[in-house]
Amino acid sequence: MAVGDLSMPTMHDIAGIRIGITESYIRYKNRRDLVVFEICEGAQVAAVFTKNAFCAAPVQLARHHLAVAAPRYLVINTGNANAGTGLQGMETAAETCQALANLTTAAAQPVSANQVLPFSTGVIGEQLPVDRLIAGLPHAIADLKVNGWNEAASGIMTTDTLPKGASEIIEVEGQRYTITGISKGAGMIRPNMATMLAFVATDAPIAKPLVEQLLKAVVEQSFNRITIDGDTSTNDACVLVATGKAGGTLIESAQDSRYEALFTALQRVFTRLAQLIVRDGEGATKFISVRVEQGLNSQECCDIAYSVAHSPLIKTAFFASDPNWGRILAAVGKAGVPELDVSKIQVWLDDVQICRDGGAAPDYREEQGARVMQQEEITIRIALGRGSASDTVWTCDLSYDYVKINADYRS
Amino acid sequence: MAVGDLSMPTMHDIAGIRIGITESYIRYKNRRDLVVFEICEGAQVAAVFTKNAFCAAPVQLARHHLAVAAPRYLVINTGNANAGTGLQGMETAAETCQALANLTTAAAQPVSANQVLPFSTGVIGEQLPVDRLIAGLPHAIADLKVNGWNEAASGIMTTDTLPKGASEIIEVEGQRYTITGISKGAGMIRPNMATMLAFVATDAPIAKPLVEQLLKAVVEQSFNRITIDGDTSTNDACVLVATGKAGGTLIESAQDSRYEALFTALQRVFTRLAQLIVRDGEGATKFISVRVEQGLNSQECCDIAYSVAHSPLIKTAFFASDPNWGRILAAVGKAGVPELDVSKIQVWLDDVQICRDGGAAPDYREEQGARVMQQEEITIRIALGRGSASDTVWTCDLSYDYVKINADYRS
Repeated sequence: MAVGDLSMPTMHDIAGIRIGITESYIRYKNRRDLVVFEICEGAQVAAVFTKNAFCAAPVQLARHHLAVAAPRYLVINTGNANAGTGLQGMETAAETCQALANLTTAAAQPVSANQVLPFSTGVIGEQLPVDRLIAGLPHAIADLKVNGWNEAASGIMTTDTLPKGASEIIEVEGQRYTITGISKGAGMIRPNMATMLAFVATDAPIAKPLVEQLLKAVVEQSFNRITIDGDTSTNDACVLVATGKAGGTLIESAQDSRYEALFTALQRVFTRLAQLIVRDGEGATKFISVRVEQGLNSQECCDIAYSVAHSPLIKTAFFASDPNWGRILAAVGKAGVPELDVSKIQVWLDDVQICRDGGAAPDYREEQGARVMQQEEITIRIALGRGSASDTVWTCDLSYDYVKINADYRS
Repeated sequence: MAVGDLSMPTMHDIAGIRIGITESYIRYKNRRDLVVFEICEGAQVAAVFTKNAFCAAPVQLARHHLAVAAPRYLVINTGNANAGTGLQGMETAAETCQALANLTTAAAQPVSANQVLPFSTGVIGEQLPVDRLIAGLPHAIADLKVNGWNEAASGIMTTDTLPKGASEIIEVEGQRYTITGISKGAGMIRPNMATMLAFVATDAPIAKPLVEQLLKAVVEQSFNRITIDGDTSTNDACVLVATGKAGGTLIESAQDSRYEALFTALQRVFTRLAQLIVRDGEGATKFISVRVEQGLNSQECCDIAYSVAHSPLIKTAFFASDPNWGRILAAVGKAGVPELDVSKIQVWLDDVQICRDGGAAPDYREEQGARVMQQEEITIRIALGRGSASDTVWTCDLSYDYVKINADYRS
């Protein structure tokens, strides 16, 4: 059901990152459900997390660990979100980190439990079978290798139908930097300051405050601009690691001459990873960009874009390839934007203007809309005629299969 | 697919109200799609309308007419919403009112065009075939009769599967008052200060300011507490008429000794009419009450209740009879209520506590939840443990048929 080309690109290794995957029987058999990232000493790590008040135990613990120590390991399990699990959930998350730290005592550089960030995804409200997870850790450690990105992309999937990855090499002032990342998620997607799960690393040498700043900036325009069903998960997390292994002087600020190229490349990788989640949205048959232009500010453009992107009526109309533009107007109108002059509103489906000055475009013919609606990828463009701000949100349609997948998920 | 008993009650006549219905071929043949209410002179009329910025032409005109004259006729067509129709839509709405006024010139009490309130429901974004509507008006006028409520309930339907009505007679201080009303709507339902369409009349003698006050109060706790898909229509309107034909002294304020009984009866009628819309929600198989208690104020209770009631994940889980309480916690957490202490949250499905202090209730067993989920009518009760306010929102589940109905609606 995925929309467009979701095939994995060549996933370039990132010097300083090793990845191990194993089967730990969290929920299903024959499923490599446990992924460990090993991060080299000296790497800079930033992360953003869900704003859901019911954030999961691993999210709470990862946020705490990140504040007090330099992360050296990420542990990610699928099959169980360890969310809504109360104090016991916090304990199992802590035990997981401690167990991984214990495995490093014999190593050259033993780490402490607070240098491990835990991540969980899967069913909410059931206790994590932590013994099985811990039993799997030695196998994951034994499996550590630099070329584990493809397997990791598969290892973190839940209802995803395909693994999701993006990778590119850029050259800036004679220096090659590599960026590689993976993401997962297909339902309960309306990230707020974060995503479902995404892990991106680069070998570029970037100072820690700038890693944090870069992550926030690129997430805001990528994972924070997608929605499948408007449901913000309890476990959203997005991590950016800069290992510095490419060498060269440290990039410390946006004034660095290498910054712009790096920012742009990160933006491409994050946007691809975010859009892959929508393209693989539960039951998705269409990839829809909702672009709102001529607003007073970005916020009102987003409010209207989300109002359109969340409307079940619009999403089902797109599933049916029905250019039902009245539903688009209704969603624009209900967004709650103050003093919106509807007589200034224009709406296009790709290149076809369907609404002019708040009413039907006089020269619009239904066949034109029907032609666009046959496409797998469609842009709804809405011009408000009151300013110069614009913003874009990406979503998918609402099909029988969305209902089927979510009616069946736990059975 | 409707949930529960939606059968029409005995619809008592309201002295001072006559209703005529006819077939005017707005969209379909063999469909009585035009309804006219005649209201006696001296009746007090109040109305509330959609807050959607893209409100339809008839909504704009009805709001204006109501402000400048005492309404004597309501004209309601189904099949076309006359929304997103620009200036031409305003003209056709005005022509409709004028045409009806013209038909009264020979009568004892001719009315002016601004004493007619127009209402339209149906497809958005197509011009109203006003000539056909106007051609139907003489037939509707010829059909005027006091016992037309049942036919009117059918006449205003769109995707409704059944007509919706409520009626009761109360006795207050030896005086009998009758209240009768009809409503319609099954999709694009998340009214904001109004409903899809509802028309309620009573023969009680109530002063105009009090009719307005009563309407606002009862709508707030009835039509403003239902949601099917979170989409606020462009055409929502709700009218309350007090003809005064029951006789007796005018009820002018909430201090009148008859007020409480009248208010309570109106509340019952409005709540029934609102709930009927949810029970007949597009594709609905379950009627779900979301009650939020122990909040700081009604607003945060509503915010959380709507976050739950709008979650496609929860709605599909209910369709599947899956007591997936993790999805309920996630929806509570994403509602954006500030400083929510999740460790104080309790959740029940009817009498079964599924969540205690923010985690799984220790003695909860899946069979208990599964038993409740088999029911057609279910209450989700959420206690926030931070105050004494409470509020309730009614909704339905999200089924294959919702997608089917809305994917097929225009075809």
